[in-house]
Amino acid sequence: MRTTVIRNVSAHDVRYTLHAGEGSDAIHKDPQYSFAATRLHTDSSLSGTGLALTMGQGNDLVCEAIRQLAAGLNGREIEDLMSGFGATFRGIADHPQLRWLGPHKGVVHLALASITNACFDLWAKSRGVPLWRLLLDLDSHAVVRLLDLSYLEDVLTEGDALALLETCKSSRPAREEILSRGYPGYDTSVGWFGYDDNRLRENARRALDRGFRAFKLKVGSPDSDVDLRRASALRSVAGEDVRIMLDANQQWSLPKALEACGKLSAIAPFWIEEPTHPDDIFGHRTIANAIAPVPVALGEHVPNRVVFKGYLQSGCAGFIQVDCTRVGGVSEFLTVSLLARKFGIPVVPHVGDMGQVHQHLVLFNHIAIGHPEVFLEYIPHLREHFVHPAQVDGGAYKTPEEPGAGTDLGELTNENR
Amino acid sequence: MRTTVIRNVSAHDVRYTLHAGEGSDAIHKDPQYSFAATRLHTDSSLSGTGLALTMGQGNDLVCEAIRQLAAGLNGREIEDLMSGFGATFRGIADHPQLRWLGPHKGVVHLALASITNACFDLWAKSRGVPLWRLLLDLDSHAVVRLLDLSYLEDVLTEGDALALLETCKSSRPAREEILSRGYPGYDTSVGWFGYDDNRLRENARRALDRGFRAFKLKVGSPDSDVDLRRASALRSVAGEDVRIMLDANQQWSLPKALEACGKLSAIAPFWIEEPTHPDDIFGHRTIANAIAPVPVALGEHVPNRVVFKGYLQSGCAGFIQVDCTRVGGVSEFLTVSLLARKFGIPVVPHVGDMGQVHQHLVLFNHIAIGHPEVFLEYIPHLREHFVHPAQVDGGAYKTPEEPGAGTDLGELTNENR
Repeated sequence: MRTTVIRNVSAHDVRYTLHAGEGSDAIHKDPQYSFAATRLHTDSSLSGTGLALTMGQGNDLVCEAIRQLAAGLNGREIEDLMSGFGATFRGIADHPQLRWLGPHKGVVHLALASITNACFDLWAKSRGVPLWRLLLDLDSHAVVRLLDLSYLEDVLTEGDALALLETCKSSRPAREEILSRGYPGYDTSVGWFGYDDNRLRENARRALDRGFRAFKLKVGSPDSDVDLRRASALRSVAGEDVRIMLDANQQWSLPKALEACGKLSAIAPFWIEEPTHPDDIFGHRTIANAIAPVPVALGEHVPNRVVFKGYLQSGCAGFIQVDCTRVGGVSEFLTVSLLARKFGIPVVPHVGDMGQVHQHLVLFNHIAIGHPEVFLEYIPHLREHFVHPAQVDGGAYKTPEEPGAGTDLGELTNENR
Repeated sequence: MRTTVIRNVSAHDVRYTLHAGEGSDAIHKDPQYSFAATRLHTDSSLSGTGLALTMGQGNDLVCEAIRQLAAGLNGREIEDLMSGFGATFRGIADHPQLRWLGPHKGVVHLALASITNACFDLWAKSRGVPLWRLLLDLDSHAVVRLLDLSYLEDVLTEGDALALLETCKSSRPAREEILSRGYPGYDTSVGWFGYDDNRLRENARRALDRGFRAFKLKVGSPDSDVDLRRASALRSVAGEDVRIMLDANQQWSLPKALEACGKLSAIAPFWIEEPTHPDDIFGHRTIANAIAPVPVALGEHVPNRVVFKGYLQSGCAGFIQVDCTRVGGVSEFLTVSLLARKFGIPVVPHVGDMGQVHQHLVLFNHIAIGHPEVFLEYIPHLREHFVHPAQVDGGAYKTPEEPGAGTDLGELTNENR
């Protein structure tokens, strides 16, 4: 195996302009999808790219945090680095001074996400395999050494994680058929907050034509009758068999959430997502109890494994929407996936990476951890900016074959910065 | 009343070098106390200074976030601004793009703390009164208009907050005697992590001579017998009547916390502080149940009112250590104080400001909200840098009489930047 040494780390503030209404929700009405991108440069033509998503302003803060946190990676050989990545992760997360700015949340943790993701991308490229293949080929001990399980000792020890991976081994072959079939997707771009009813209907018809059997609708209007009208319009086009997920993006107070969810249950949503503030564990539990059997989905803004532990312990989470561009990258995504599996709760990632990395991770979650096949969010708006954009066909992600994690951005690669 | 208009906002990265061992704890072994300082400049000689504390590296990130978040304050008249500050606070906290970097936590929320604190300082100076006096003279409606109570609707409405303030009114005169007596302090500088046993004993004797009746000791050694030895040494000097608080600064896993707290209960601590990760609500509850009647103190790293709500709902908090340099400044400190009062839990602030602002806030909490008199943390290491350092005499904070919030820093004021 050739030797791949990190010679330089750079951070890049990349911002994109979306078309009117794209990406809009009740809280983020005018988003500018942006990546705080980490680039790992080597002596060879190989490079690694990692992403953290932001909504535009402040993307520079994450880039500067990347520069401050990643300095220690210079000179590290990638196989050596990844053979004990959990310890490196913890060292960065617990930087003796920068830790104060979190801990394990906000700008510094977004920066760690981007750094971690770049390491996994470079690692897979240096082995010449797609990330899902690399992860599936690791032995269970090597997987666990990628993880920082600190502060989870009460629910998920290294031994627990190992046992979970080992137990899943015998049934892996049956689940590998997903690789040829492709992991199902759902279309989030049907129902942005800024789209009117006609646009919703049009988008739903087009998504159905493309093979999607699940959509998302953004809700959280001041008047919940407006939400109900929009949701009903979508249901009437989609029919009863298509799954519709409703997403309030934290807009509701707890009393408002109870009122609105009560109404919206009428359209039989597959889940209701982020009904209130992402720090409000007991609020989510109250909502989950009130709207059962409709499940609550959450996690887009949950910053780390410790908060996810709390949500899982509270029993309110129907779906865990961990995002590897929000928690500390692929490493902490895997930790949260193991944790969720321990609690028996499915993982359906939020895709701050537009699905580029998560298309790999859901394959690992299903095959190696035994998570059920659900579907993966699909957002098409930044397709043209990726060197190898995710291929979604017949409503399913085609299993990627290019080496790496799928995160190379055209403008960064071309400039060879 | 004269008109005070904000003409310019500047942010300043101010870092101090401490002597060996000062400020050290089990997690932050080599801190460099630093302030991300907001300065509000006016047409007159009046200016406002607000602080957020960091441990050194990354202080620049908070300063840059201040610049991005505070732009809207230019041109605002201070009385007009503060007459509806809760709405302004919410507007900054929910900035449509920067909110993504939290929400309400990490670098952007530290920046909001600094900005908010500068507004309160300028306001008090413009009225020519110390902050505690200004707050006590406000009518209850004006106090509530300072607050952002969003996401607290289930436990603390505007009506609840108003009722609480009004109910406390009749008993205020009796509590005003604290103003002449001075709010008691406790000495945190006795027992830094880096101090050996002899130094602990010496420091304790000196603190007793100075009139302190309460100290803090940093714990969290790998071997909890070392913690017990240090704690016992301190107890033997202090005697049984002095309060000793033990602070693990998040160092322990949950199993380790249970083991260590079990041992340390032998010295009858007044509380055990931050026993594990500040995001682990259920972990804290398990610890609190295990070590009762020794109470758990927490809040130094709790970023906002929503997480405090969760801690209060969980029933595990014996003392709420909210810090106006960690949550969104004086405004959110007051919100959390009202919330804690609603749940019947005392507030004993962590003093990221070295007590300069909190000496005002504990007076308001006691007199206007009816919180019990406990004591206020005292950390002397940055005294010489403040224009009006807190005066602690006989173990009590002397009630400050200078106009403002006490946050002016010599080097910034002299440079008149």
